[in-house]
Amino acid sequence: MGGKRIGELMTGAAAAGADRWLAGAAWVDGRYCPIEEAKISVLDLGVTRSDCTYDVAHVWRGRFYRLDDHLDRFSASMARLRLDPGHDRAKIEAIVHGCVRHAGLREAYVSMTCTRGRTAAGSRDLRTARNTFYCYAIPFVWISTPDQQAGGASLWVSTVTRIPPQSVDPAVKNYHWLDLDMALLDAYDHDAQLVVLRDLTGAITEGPGFNVFAFVNGRWLTPAAGTLGGITRLSVIELAAEAGQPVEQGLLTADDLRRADEVLVTSTAGGIIPVTVIDGRPVGTGMPGRLTAQLRDRYWARHQDPQYSTPVRYNEQD
Amino acid sequence: MGGKRIGELMTGAAAAGADRWLAGAAWVDGRYCPIEEAKISVLDLGVTRSDCTYDVAHVWRGRFYRLDDHLDRFSASMARLRLDPGHDRAKIEAIVHGCVRHAGLREAYVSMTCTRGRTAAGSRDLRTARNTFYCYAIPFVWISTPDQQAGGASLWVSTVTRIPPQSVDPAVKNYHWLDLDMALLDAYDHDAQLVVLRDLTGAITEGPGFNVFAFVNGRWLTPAAGTLGGITRLSVIELAAEAGQPVEQGLLTADDLRRADEVLVTSTAGGIIPVTVIDGRPVGTGMPGRLTAQLRDRYWARHQDPQYSTPVRYNEQD
Repeated sequence: MGGKRIGELMTGAAAAGADRWLAGAAWVDGRYCPIEEAKISVLDLGVTRSDCTYDVAHVWRGRFYRLDDHLDRFSASMARLRLDPGHDRAKIEAIVHGCVRHAGLREAYVSMTCTRGRTAAGSRDLRTARNTFYCYAIPFVWISTPDQQAGGASLWVSTVTRIPPQSVDPAVKNYHWLDLDMALLDAYDHDAQLVVLRDLTGAITEGPGFNVFAFVNGRWLTPAAGTLGGITRLSVIELAAEAGQPVEQGLLTADDLRRADEVLVTSTAGGIIPVTVIDGRPVGTGMPGRLTAQLRDRYWARHQDPQYSTPVRYNEQD
Repeated sequence: MGGKRIGELMTGAAAAGADRWLAGAAWVDGRYCPIEEAKISVLDLGVTRSDCTYDVAHVWRGRFYRLDDHLDRFSASMARLRLDPGHDRAKIEAIVHGCVRHAGLREAYVSMTCTRGRTAAGSRDLRTARNTFYCYAIPFVWISTPDQQAGGASLWVSTVTRIPPQSVDPAVKNYHWLDLDMALLDAYDHDAQLVVLRDLTGAITEGPGFNVFAFVNGRWLTPAAGTLGGITRLSVIELAAEAGQPVEQGLLTADDLRRADEVLVTSTAGGIIPVTVIDGRPVGTGMPGRLTAQLRDRYWARHQDPQYSTPVRYNEQD
């Protein structure tokens, strides 16, 4: 697995000044640009209030994985926050493809964001704000690198409480990550690579950008609520069923994690990642488990299945 | 009250291309620029994780109000988030003055932000991030305009729960405002201008950028915890004591607000603002109260007091 570039498929602007596009391509303020030029105003309410929503799809071997599901979720998130990207779905889809095309990437992390934008000069009234939409494609991002995944990742169960649904709807993908980042800094102090947070009752919720599954008492258990409805999470639920592995969406506790036979986390940025150490102690045998390996193989195989993937429009122009 | 500009004090770059600086001035990426050019990367973790802290001071009639208090709080917030702005306090203070000088403003809203910055290419490890600092000065911002303040503002008590301290420390001034903004949109639907949120137990916390006080049972009551330690809040506590008005920091309920003789909110963006309508019903007589008026007069008078204010360095160069 890697991030091979496909110079031979570059078109237009990408071919003209390829060096500037090597690190990624963005669509900001109504035009494509190299990622290093992709900036937003410090006055945008997406910055000053984190008043925005986003979604991240990925491209693997030249194909988007479940792009429709990501676009569906992005639309629902914008509606929930009363945000209008100013473009219809077909245009957003074209921009998403365009960013990958301009970057010339075969494997990519593709992010789309809609922010509240800026209020009228001198006003604090949110209703005067003109919402903004931007998008970018950069080389594929790994929460846990393939090397780390081979041995399994280490996870820390944090004492920081995840921002509760009563405050911010976790089903709306958002950038309110201070709880997650402060917990992650604490996890580093304990020699862990990843961190997971609990809710106000002590139940496991999610980590920075990922959902969690534990194989305990003969079935995969993952939180039913209080987390983002991850697309990779959905894939694991489907793939486990296909593989004859029972799955339950319910209440997951820290004790469940610690006594589980296998633990995995799911993210667009990395797929299905085995966890072999929790709070410094081994999970099961301390090696990536057999069930997790089956799910990973099925997950990556799906990326070539036309039912779940669509080819990037490398040859279009705009 | 207004935002009078002082062209005669403009220096250097501001004088050379004054038009471009009229809307405000910023310090970003190590240099001053007009506010419209002040942008940050869409990859900055201050955007993608709202992993940052900020502070806002203000300038009134050419003088900063309690700038040292704002710089103290900003330093404490950065330390709490393990952020390093890359400049010492004297340099940050010089930049804050420089932004006001470049904008040529006599009345200004002056914001300083430190973000986690960007991680190393291909890494998700927060420890690889180089933190960034930026600052800007724009014309004074009013949460509630002077006209609105004359008649008193209307406030809505939201059903949205403020992000709790167990998740994000409210004493660290932060951009996690989706709860506040969603509540504010709901307040607009109920014809209110402002909104206040409650905590998980139902107690009043704060609104978008302001603290709340209610005069009830013969004393001003304001939440003791679960809110930002506002500089204007501190001023009201001090000024009320000077004016012989008792103040208590404790538990403030929605019922307290509804049966109060007077209610006010405090913010750097607007000072002390009388609230005359709560949930569509009048507060006390329905007119701005006498005690609030006393505090407002004292508050604005303090802005010329050298104990609490310092002149902007309009004549320095850098």
